[in-house]
Amino acid sequence: MPDQSTSQATPQHPSPAAAARGHGAAGDATAGEGISRRRLLGTAGATGLVLGAAGGAVGHAAAPSAAVPLTSLGSDRAMFHGKHQPGITDPLQARGHLVAFDLVAGAGRKEAAALLRRWSAAAERLMAGEAAPHDDTDVARDAGPSSLTITLGFGHGFFDRTGLGKQRPAALDPLPDFSSDRLDKARSDGDLWVQIGANDALVAFHALRTLQKEAGSAARVRWQMNGFNRSPGATAHPMTTRNLMGQIDGTRNPKPADADFDRRVFVPDDGEPAWMAGGSYVVVRRIRMLLDDWEKLPRAEQEAVIGRRKSDGAPLSGGGETTEMDLERTGKDGRVVVPLNAHARITRPDQNGGAAMLRRPFSYHDGFDADGVPDAGLLFVCWQADPLRGFVPVQRKLDRGDALSPYIRHEASGLFAVPGGAAQGEYVGQRLLEG
Amino acid sequence: MPDQSTSQATPQHPSPAAAARGHGAAGDATAGEGISRRRLLGTAGATGLVLGAAGGAVGHAAAPSAAVPLTSLGSDRAMFHGKHQPGITDPLQARGHLVAFDLVAGAGRKEAAALLRRWSAAAERLMAGEAAPHDDTDVARDAGPSSLTITLGFGHGFFDRTGLGKQRPAALDPLPDFSSDRLDKARSDGDLWVQIGANDALVAFHALRTLQKEAGSAARVRWQMNGFNRSPGATAHPMTTRNLMGQIDGTRNPKPADADFDRRVFVPDDGEPAWMAGGSYVVVRRIRMLLDDWEKLPRAEQEAVIGRRKSDGAPLSGGGETTEMDLERTGKDGRVVVPLNAHARITRPDQNGGAAMLRRPFSYHDGFDADGVPDAGLLFVCWQADPLRGFVPVQRKLDRGDALSPYIRHEASGLFAVPGGAAQGEYVGQRLLEG
Repeated sequence: MPDQSTSQATPQHPSPAAAARGHGAAGDATAGEGISRRRLLGTAGATGLVLGAAGGAVGHAAAPSAAVPLTSLGSDRAMFHGKHQPGITDPLQARGHLVAFDLVAGAGRKEAAALLRRWSAAAERLMAGEAAPHDDTDVARDAGPSSLTITLGFGHGFFDRTGLGKQRPAALDPLPDFSSDRLDKARSDGDLWVQIGANDALVAFHALRTLQKEAGSAARVRWQMNGFNRSPGATAHPMTTRNLMGQIDGTRNPKPADADFDRRVFVPDDGEPAWMAGGSYVVVRRIRMLLDDWEKLPRAEQEAVIGRRKSDGAPLSGGGETTEMDLERTGKDGRVVVPLNAHARITRPDQNGGAAMLRRPFSYHDGFDADGVPDAGLLFVCWQADPLRGFVPVQRKLDRGDALSPYIRHEASGLFAVPGGAAQGEYVGQRLLEG
Repeated sequence: MPDQSTSQATPQHPSPAAAARGHGAAGDATAGEGISRRRLLGTAGATGLVLGAAGGAVGHAAAPSAAVPLTSLGSDRAMFHGKHQPGITDPLQARGHLVAFDLVAGAGRKEAAALLRRWSAAAERLMAGEAAPHDDTDVARDAGPSSLTITLGFGHGFFDRTGLGKQRPAALDPLPDFSSDRLDKARSDGDLWVQIGANDALVAFHALRTLQKEAGSAARVRWQMNGFNRSPGATAHPMTTRNLMGQIDGTRNPKPADADFDRRVFVPDDGEPAWMAGGSYVVVRRIRMLLDDWEKLPRAEQEAVIGRRKSDGAPLSGGGETTEMDLERTGKDGRVVVPLNAHARITRPDQNGGAAMLRRPFSYHDGFDADGVPDAGLLFVCWQADPLRGFVPVQRKLDRGDALSPYIRHEASGLFAVPGGAAQGEYVGQRLLEG
C-alpha cells in the first residue's frame, strides 16, 4: 500500500488534534472499504511515523522539531460523517463502552433533538482528537483519536416518549422470548443507546463521560457495560479476534467486499422508514460464559461444541480458518464430522434461510463473584438490515439445540435502530426528529 | 538506538511464542535501565517488524514465508528472572489486574511453597508468550507476550498461616489508620497478592485466569480489580500518564537513573529479613475519584488543588513538567503561587523527610452507580524499600491537609512484601519458603 504509506509520512503537526486531522484524510474510506483500508493504514502508518521518531532510518521528511510524533495507534482516525455511522464496519477496537440512556420525564421531541445535536457535535470533535465542546476534563489530552468511534441509536421506548410513535420501525418490535434467556431488565433495553470504541481506554472513558455530561437534564444512564478486544499489534492474525472461551470469533462474518454486504447490514436508500436509509439495527446481548464449566471440557469436546478447531478456527471437516465447512463429511464411525448441534453449523447462513449479521463484539470481565467465578463473557453486538432476517432466526435455532447453550447465559438484551450517518452540518437522527 | 533497531530486525520466527523468545534477549535489561530501554525498544521494534510485514520497504532480511509477523506491542517482552520481580520498573501497561488470594484452611507452608512454584512456572511461560502449563484455554493464542508482567507478593496473614511468623518483616505491620479512610475490608489485604499487567486485555485476562486455576485447592480469590492506562502509541508523551481527573500523573516519580533509586525502591542485599533482598514493599489503595464534584471545579481551582497546570503538568510556579517547583514564589497578592495545601507540594520528598515511592498505578472504571455516578478512580500502586519511609509519612501528611481530599475516597487498602526476582531454576519466594 505505497500510497497510504506515503500519506502517513507527511510532517507531523505539533498538536495531537492537528496531527489527527492530517491523518484523517487518508482514513476517509467509504464504509464498504473501511475495514481493509483502515486496518492496512494502521500498519503502514506505524512505519512512517515510528521511523520519523527514531531518527529517520529511511528517507522520509524529517519531522519538525516541535512535533509530537504519534504512532499509528493514536493517530488512526475514523470518520464521523458518512453514509453510515462509524463503529459498524470499522475494525474492532481494544476498548469499548456500551451505554443506554432513558429520557427523563418531561423530555420530549424538542429536548431529544437538542440532545442528539449535542451528542453529534461532541462525537465529531472527539473522533477528530479534539477537546469536548464544554469543560473538557483533559483525560484524553495528548492522545490521538485512537480510532475512536461513537455510534448512536434509538430504542423502542424513544418513539412514544417523543411523540414519534408513527415513525417507529416495525423492526424495533420487541425480540421474541427465547427459552434460554435469563434477562436482567435493568440492564436491558433503553430509549437511547451509545456505543463507544477506541484503542485507548482513557480516550474511550473520556468519550463516555463527555456524552454522559452532554446528556444534561434530558436523559439519564440506564445501564452501562465495559468491554475489550485484542490490542492492535498484539497479534498479526488478520481479521478475527478470540473470545474468552479461546475461540476465534468472526470467521464467517459478512465482508464488506461481499456483493450482498450492504443489503444484509444496512437499510437501503429506498427502505422503510425513510429516516432509516443507510441505517442498521443492532442487537446487543450480554452473554455470560460459564467458564468454570467450559474449561473443564477436554479440548476435543470443546471443538465438537463449536464445530471448529480452537487452534486456528478451521472447521472440523478440514482445511483452514476460511475453508468452507463440509456439513456432509462423515468420519470413520459414519457420523458427520461437524456435529448436528455444533454452534458453527447452526449459525451458518445457509442453514438459516440466508440469515446473516455482522457480529462486532467486545469481551467483558467484571471481576469475580464471591465464590471466585468470573463474571465474564461476550458483549455480543450484531448489525443487520432487519433483525427478523438476522439475529432472530439464528437465535431461534440456537435456542432449540445449540451445543454451546450449557456454557453460556444471555443476561441482558437490547435492540436499537441506528440511523444512517450524519451528513456535514447534520446531526444523527435529524431526519427522524425534524422529518 | 541503532543496535536495538538491528536486534529487532532479525528474521521472525513462525510462531508468536518463538518470535517472542527471539526478541526477549534484547529486552533483557537490568532493572535499573529497564524503563528507558524497554520503552525505546518498543518504538524501534515496531519499525523492523512492521516493515517486514509491509513487504520490506527497507533492506531487512525477509521474513520466512510462514512467519506470523508481530508488531512491537505484541512482541515486547519483560523478563521473569532477574534481581527484581517484573512489574515494578517496567513501563505501565494498558491493562492491569490486581488480585489477592487467601490460603484455604489447612494449607500451610508446604502447600504455599508448591503454589509459588506453580505460579512462578506459569508466570515464566506466559511472560514468554508460551501456553499455560496445564490446559491452556487459547485465550492468548496468536498474541505475543504484549509486555506481560506477573508480580507475586505476601500479605501479613501469610506468615502465621504458614508457620513463618518469625520471618514476617516489621515493614508488613498494618498501616496506620488514616482519618479519611473509608476502607472495605472485603476488598483489602489478603495472604497473597498478584499484579498482572499487559498491553493486551486478553493476554492479561488469560494470565489472571491461569493463575487462579494454578492456585488449585491451596488458595481462593479474596478480591480482584481491573485497571487500565494509556495504550502504547496512543500518545507520544514520554514518561507519564494521565489519570481520570485529567492530571498528568507520575512526573516526580523516582527515575531508575537516580543515584538513590535502588535504595528507595528495593530492599538492599544486606537488608532484613534476608529473604527480602532485592524485594520491595507495595502499597495498594483503591482510590475512588468523586468525579461529579471534581469536574464542577473550574480549571484554575483544580490546578490550585494539585499545584500544577492540567495542560502540561508544569508547576504553578512556572516552567515545564519537569521544572523544579518553586515553593516560595509568590504572586501579586503576596501569597505563594503553589498553595500550602496543594497536593503536589505536600507529596514532595523534600517536604517529607526525603520520603519517596515509585508510583505505578492503573486507572479503574467499574461502571456507574444506580444514580449515574461513575465508580472510577485510581488503583494506586506504590513501591518502596520501606513503607514507613515511603507511603506512610506522605499519606499522614495528606490526611492532615491535602486540598485533594474532598475529591477522593480511599476505599480499599493492602500492603504486601514482594520478594526479589527468582534466579534461573528458582521460584519466587523460595528463599522464604525453603530458607
